[in-house]
Amino acid sequence: MNIKLNYKLIVCFLFITNIQAQGLRVEPPNWWVGMELNEIQLMVYAENISSYQPEIKYKGVKINTIHKADSPNYLFIDLQISNAVKAGKFKINFKKKGTKNLRFEYEIKSREKPAREIQGFNSSDAIYLITPDRFANANPKNDVIESLLETKIDRNDDYARHGGDIEGITQHLDYIQDMGFTAVWPSPLLENNMKSASYHGYAITDFYKVDPRFGTLSEYKNLAKKLQQKNMRLIMDMVANHCGSEHWWMKDLPFSNWLNYQEEFEAGEKMPTSNHRRTTNQDRYASKYDAAEMQKGWFVQTMPDLNQQNPFMATYIIQNSIWWIETLHLGGIRQDTYPYPDKHFMADWAKAIMTEYPNFSIVGEEWSYNPLLVAYWQDGHQNYDGYRSYLKSTMDFPMQQNIVDALNEDESWDNGLVKIYEGLANDFAYNSPKDIMIFADNHDKSRIYTQLNEDVEKTKMAMGLLLTLPRIPQVYYGTEILMNDTEKPGDHGLIRTDFPGGWLGDEVDVFKNEALTETQMDFKDFLKTILNYRKNSTAIHDGKTIHFAPFEGLYVLFRQHENETLMLVLNKNETSKTVDLNRFKELDLNGKEFINLHTDNSFIWSEELQLKHGISIFTTKK
Amino acid sequence: MNIKLNYKLIVCFLFITNIQAQGLRVEPPNWWVGMELNEIQLMVYAENISSYQPEIKYKGVKINTIHKADSPNYLFIDLQISNAVKAGKFKINFKKKGTKNLRFEYEIKSREKPAREIQGFNSSDAIYLITPDRFANANPKNDVIESLLETKIDRNDDYARHGGDIEGITQHLDYIQDMGFTAVWPSPLLENNMKSASYHGYAITDFYKVDPRFGTLSEYKNLAKKLQQKNMRLIMDMVANHCGSEHWWMKDLPFSNWLNYQEEFEAGEKMPTSNHRRTTNQDRYASKYDAAEMQKGWFVQTMPDLNQQNPFMATYIIQNSIWWIETLHLGGIRQDTYPYPDKHFMADWAKAIMTEYPNFSIVGEEWSYNPLLVAYWQDGHQNYDGYRSYLKSTMDFPMQQNIVDALNEDESWDNGLVKIYEGLANDFAYNSPKDIMIFADNHDKSRIYTQLNEDVEKTKMAMGLLLTLPRIPQVYYGTEILMNDTEKPGDHGLIRTDFPGGWLGDEVDVFKNEALTETQMDFKDFLKTILNYRKNSTAIHDGKTIHFAPFEGLYVLFRQHENETLMLVLNKNETSKTVDLNRFKELDLNGKEFINLHTDNSFIWSEELQLKHGISIFTTKK
Repeated sequence: MNIKLNYKLIVCFLFITNIQAQGLRVEPPNWWVGMELNEIQLMVYAENISSYQPEIKYKGVKINTIHKADSPNYLFIDLQISNAVKAGKFKINFKKKGTKNLRFEYEIKSREKPAREIQGFNSSDAIYLITPDRFANANPKNDVIESLLETKIDRNDDYARHGGDIEGITQHLDYIQDMGFTAVWPSPLLENNMKSASYHGYAITDFYKVDPRFGTLSEYKNLAKKLQQKNMRLIMDMVANHCGSEHWWMKDLPFSNWLNYQEEFEAGEKMPTSNHRRTTNQDRYASKYDAAEMQKGWFVQTMPDLNQQNPFMATYIIQNSIWWIETLHLGGIRQDTYPYPDKHFMADWAKAIMTEYPNFSIVGEEWSYNPLLVAYWQDGHQNYDGYRSYLKSTMDFPMQQNIVDALNEDESWDNGLVKIYEGLANDFAYNSPKDIMIFADNHDKSRIYTQLNEDVEKTKMAMGLLLTLPRIPQVYYGTEILMNDTEKPGDHGLIRTDFPGGWLGDEVDVFKNEALTETQMDFKDFLKTILNYRKNSTAIHDGKTIHFAPFEGLYVLFRQHENETLMLVLNKNETSKTVDLNRFKELDLNGKEFINLHTDNSFIWSEELQLKHGISIFTTKK
Repeated sequence: MNIKLNYKLIVCFLFITNIQAQGLRVEPPNWWVGMELNEIQLMVYAENISSYQPEIKYKGVKINTIHKADSPNYLFIDLQISNAVKAGKFKINFKKKGTKNLRFEYEIKSREKPAREIQGFNSSDAIYLITPDRFANANPKNDVIESLLETKIDRNDDYARHGGDIEGITQHLDYIQDMGFTAVWPSPLLENNMKSASYHGYAITDFYKVDPRFGTLSEYKNLAKKLQQKNMRLIMDMVANHCGSEHWWMKDLPFSNWLNYQEEFEAGEKMPTSNHRRTTNQDRYASKYDAAEMQKGWFVQTMPDLNQQNPFMATYIIQNSIWWIETLHLGGIRQDTYPYPDKHFMADWAKAIMTEYPNFSIVGEEWSYNPLLVAYWQDGHQNYDGYRSYLKSTMDFPMQQNIVDALNEDESWDNGLVKIYEGLANDFAYNSPKDIMIFADNHDKSRIYTQLNEDVEKTKMAMGLLLTLPRIPQVYYGTEILMNDTEKPGDHGLIRTDFPGGWLGDEVDVFKNEALTETQMDFKDFLKTILNYRKNSTAIHDGKTIHFAPFEGLYVLFRQHENETLMLVLNKNETSKTVDLNRFKELDLNGKEFINLHTDNSFIWSEELQLKHGISIFTTKK
């Protein structure tokens, strides 16, 4: 067994490039003064480290407990960090009789910002979701890293690396801000040292390392800093459920239960995959069999399923998340595949973060069209089983589907716009609808322009609506120029098409408005106008919502806050329509001046109003 | 105005046949000693009654307040009935100077049963829903009542009267009980003196009078008594939302706001109908406009919408319901169109009943496929708006649809049996799933046999499942012999086809098992076996439910209570299937003997089990 492990270790070392002095890996690599989480657990990895005795001599830092793992090459050290500790560096000495000591320089840093100032996204934000490999390639030098497993770069291959990087995002923050976005969510930027399709980022192979093809930690910090200077937020996309099969620890797992189905993995079997029956998290009647298959089954064969029921793993993930928040002063976390890990761990994880940063925001991805499940996950919902999630935000898959159906279906009593009306009525089940994140599409879904059969006006209706609802809107990069996957709807490679202008020599350059079609320019302006209006619209951020059942092919929704009233109309009729404003008299708008957000035409509210085909947004405020 | 009213009154009198001595109508016609509701309000109707002064001299009965209405022909008298009152009859004297006194003999009756013994239906019941005009005609003498508006009787006309009556039900209680039902729900039996289609019963024209074509109050009481002797329950179908347009009071309404949209009605306008946007009851964002249209709009033109916000109307309806419960010792109420009346009134109504009869049951009809709405209406659900319904049971339209879809759809990851699995998973949202009423069809829906394309095995699967779920099952009369409306699916007349054998000379007589096809006999036995097993199955009534995600075209559900385990399998494969029982090992069934409920074959639980196409039910108990 030992021989086998040592062999594994040697193989493993071939791939480890970032181990510090004397071959020691210590994670988290540093901590801070005055954290709520002031008892941390260091994971130490080095050959035969379990036979060493660690020692620390630094005032305010004390070793509480030392845990050995199943592999001799790990130690877990519980450190107590006093609130009176001073920032500074110190040595961790690892002693063993008859051997030279090992040493690791550890640092307790001072904090740059009080925890309360680490503020998460909310309904005043509009989030720009980016697939970093496909957005902009600022630094072609990092396109290929020879030491990594995937060295292929080919913009003609939808599943190869294309070269986009962190610096590519940083260089275009002006563009993003001008469009009206207030937050950026890049999909994961951490190392994905996988053999193929590593571009998407969801198969993390080192939870503390930026993928060098995306850049460096210092570039990631620079992106964070630049965003903060612009009063914008950086959202980090995290994955607690699994890692990539090339994760460094896969060749020498600390415990025999570090992964789910680890026995099968070590026996070289085909891994049982999740049954994806996500309702087992809520179902009163779910069998233990199905619940285990759901939670423990691997997401895919190349993504080992982490066992968060191992307390060392649980602590590792929690500390990792807090380390990134504190390092980057994040404006939020998006947590992947939320219903797949152990839900009680997810609650512990979210609680630890929210305890550390009371004003933070986390959004969890529950890919379900059932509002009951979405509601269950949002903190504050009274769940029958007493489950408390500590999760502020969930993804609004139900309304996404409702909006698309509403626009694609012909109008009838129970089809068409009524899907928006009744879908939104379901908000009564949510603890806080305005904290739910809405989107028209994302990196996993067909582009909204394709979903709406390349109907520009319908795409305007969808986007205009979701930007004015009581929600946190998320827009996928390229939506502003009607990017599509119509050729092969749903194809991941195609959905994540390169953003034109992100590469030197691109014929179309969106950043410079070069070579865009008239339709694209018009659509971009349409979106930009709403996004920028939205920035200061308290009616959209916090206003009351009043909507009217669809009538004559029209859907009307109002948002109201103090003196600001916003009226959104979706007119699915082929032609314009005159509407008797009496229907809306409860809003008491007589005599008020309204301005059309896009045409700047104004009218005084009185008897009736002519509404053009498509979307119209009127406001009292502009 | 007075002249007009008097004219109306005269016309009205022509239709009133049950006014007691001296042309006085007093409702409720009696009350009881020792009720929780001991301040009642009499509605008194007679020409110019408002100019009379009522007097009562009876120990323990006191007039608290006398209210005049907008019409001079009504008085509302608040009576305080002391708990010390003795049962007996007394006169209400109506005095007016220079006129002869009017007198009405009123009775305070003693109660036959303590309120706690008036017990409502629960999950141990199986309810037989009957359309009385179409079930059995025991008394051809009451088929035509010349004094009523509709005198047509024609069994070949789907929308005419067919002659079924109360006595027809009473005479066949043995049949109903033998089948395994424990409760009978006839659709409304009160007077529907309408010009046409009066057979369905939902256009009530006198809330205190049995429709003479169905029989008499004494026959209704006899039905109730016979059911109680059989330890069965009588459920009354009530309608609080509307009356029939030929209701006696329609020609002389007591108040100017007795009805919704009364002004429009009195002006002879076409009545605004409900927008049927039922979500306005829950929607945080519903406009007042839509909410009013929903609640105040008439259900149909011939059904005046009662305004329960008029407190006299509210009291009238509440007293009427309690009067019927106490008169018939009901085993439950089914309330029609639950989301249509003012929901706060509905809560007051249900609360009054549940206060009077703490063990009673009411089921409300919310015809929605959205479990969020169903959950909202069930008492005990924590609603965001603080709404408390006091309603024990709601109708399970969502699962009805799920079962039909599950059986009709081809199997795939998200189609077919998974609709049952995920539909049932939604139970986590309900306060008490086992108190929800499930059904395969009813008087408004296409027959289940038709919904399932006349596939007998699928129909068995649907019925077998719903009779074993944690629910209160309701079965529509004739389901046992596969009655269908395939010729014109959804046609109300056809759905409510005459029950064969209910009429003298019927060629097929179900009661005697005469001339039934083999398929019908087989299906009837199938249902009868489950229903009778169900009567004493605590696993079905109160057991734990465990189910397994569909696999290989199979769905497996267990119910378990103490030593009784019931296993239901739906096998949608064309052929039989051998299943590895290891999947179910968490139930710890090794070595237990199971008996197939329908074949009586037994097996000892061990490694695997062969399951035939269709439905199999196994139990440890039989």
